[in-house]
Amino acid sequence: MHEFDLIQKYFNWNGLPANVSVGVGDDAAVLEIAADEQLVTSIDTFISGVHFPHDTPAEAIGHKALAVNLSDLAAMGASPQWFTLALTLPEIRQNWLADFSRGLKTLAQESACFLVGGDTTRGALSISIQVMGVVKKGQALTRSGARAGDLIYLTGTLGDAHAGLESILHGFELAAGDKAYCQKRLHRPTPRLQQSELIRPFATACIDLSDGFLQDLGHLLSASRCGAQINTAELPLSKALQTLPQDIAMQFALSGGDDYELLFTIPKNKQPEFEKYIKKGGDGLIKQVGVITHHTDQIIDENKQLLDQAGYSHF
Amino acid sequence: MHEFDLIQKYFNWNGLPANVSVGVGDDAAVLEIAADEQLVTSIDTFISGVHFPHDTPAEAIGHKALAVNLSDLAAMGASPQWFTLALTLPEIRQNWLADFSRGLKTLAQESACFLVGGDTTRGALSISIQVMGVVKKGQALTRSGARAGDLIYLTGTLGDAHAGLESILHGFELAAGDKAYCQKRLHRPTPRLQQSELIRPFATACIDLSDGFLQDLGHLLSASRCGAQINTAELPLSKALQTLPQDIAMQFALSGGDDYELLFTIPKNKQPEFEKYIKKGGDGLIKQVGVITHHTDQIIDENKQLLDQAGYSHF
Repeated sequence: MHEFDLIQKYFNWNGLPANVSVGVGDDAAVLEIAADEQLVTSIDTFISGVHFPHDTPAEAIGHKALAVNLSDLAAMGASPQWFTLALTLPEIRQNWLADFSRGLKTLAQESACFLVGGDTTRGALSISIQVMGVVKKGQALTRSGARAGDLIYLTGTLGDAHAGLESILHGFELAAGDKAYCQKRLHRPTPRLQQSELIRPFATACIDLSDGFLQDLGHLLSASRCGAQINTAELPLSKALQTLPQDIAMQFALSGGDDYELLFTIPKNKQPEFEKYIKKGGDGLIKQVGVITHHTDQIIDENKQLLDQAGYSHF
Repeated sequence: MHEFDLIQKYFNWNGLPANVSVGVGDDAAVLEIAADEQLVTSIDTFISGVHFPHDTPAEAIGHKALAVNLSDLAAMGASPQWFTLALTLPEIRQNWLADFSRGLKTLAQESACFLVGGDTTRGALSISIQVMGVVKKGQALTRSGARAGDLIYLTGTLGDAHAGLESILHGFELAAGDKAYCQKRLHRPTPRLQQSELIRPFATACIDLSDGFLQDLGHLLSASRCGAQINTAELPLSKALQTLPQDIAMQFALSGGDDYELLFTIPKNKQPEFEKYIKKGGDGLIKQVGVITHHTDQIIDENKQLLDQAGYSHF
């Protein structure tokens, strides 16, 4: 199978919107963008054995490769528009490609994010996706806007994906239902795009959790030049994690990667309005977990004990 | 070395222009785009042993990984603006990174194309670059606009990079100076951005040559639903290729990959104006090599013999 046939069969999807003038199949894509918007763009690589276990189902790989990129857009408060795909494959296995393509396409359609170009190559399995979104001028959420006194919030629960990964790689024991739940959280993370829209008018800073809660909080603090006090007893844990010994659950929650939840800050004086607003939005997933302090790069718990920020490192 | 230190040291370059609101270091980049322009975007992956010999100098890899993407923008008539980099490395070797980063940065600065984000990962050496450019609304050059009677033009010379590759991989013999020239054409292709600007007001279709002259011409013909007659005796060959036996030189020119020249079509009635215009632009690199015909997907030579379009295939 020639690469052009491969692209035609698996990645030349119909239904491109009017803001795509040239999509898949030319030297580059040509895209329209409105005058009062800014383009928001992020790239992530996804490698077998590094970002996902070798035996991960292809459909989950397709889903997750796009999901982690959409999560970056959510962290910026941007609306997804388009993405490009660089796919490196050791060989052409049609079943694998059909499953991968389906996982990718389903999430792309759910998110109204359109594939507009790409590149296929032979080599060790690797997927790079560049996602592009838009945001109204000046409304992007960065990591650098948090100020001492701001309240720290979180979407969803922590550590589930890490428990799922441990169950696959090291036979970590979980009840059958919990195992399925945690592995689903690992393989099929939900990019928090809806929550991002709720948050955007209120938040001063935002980051998505990929390397672990403490490490990613550390990045936000570093960019904002401040510190944080975290109420570890209030960290949101799923029912699956609540069944684990407390020290293990806390370790997974604080340092486990692959959560793809949003961590963000809200000025104290906006708290009442924000909490009313998110309740109206019907979202029970958002919870306050701490407060921003003056102590640059320092993270302490409710007992003023220093928390170690070491998380996942690729090197 | 942590990935964040790696990014800071080698890829957080100064001198971002005003149209970059958020660059390297946040979840995503935030970019400004003017109201009357369209965004043009392309992604290419570059793998050791596939796209370049394993012992290619790191500085050349950095240059070429960006050059092949800029060549796609040139083929669309777009001006480079920004790029993102997904870099996968087996290990951190500081000398290698310094050389790679220098090759990348030098071409980025020459092309006024700014690095605005990326991702670093551990794995087999692989580089994916997504490049973004802009073009005035409606002025992008696609592959699909050629019509029977249009004249086929080419920038530069054909087959040099392939001769360079053969000299590295299979000891193909070239005189010392020719060898250096051909390997330079392989390792350090010049994206034809200036020629692209000259061509844009006149061309009906354009493609860049990456897989080989005949194969890429085939893509243009396929998208434009027409055929071509090529004057093979007029194909531009460098002095290095002119010293080779004619059948080998012709094979390299017609089917060798990695040329990164522009192949484009001009309506016959615009020829006099176009030729005057490119002479004024001082560019002796542009030459007519054939004419578009009605015979869809068929490429013939000056003796009406069919030419075989097989070129490089990744799979």
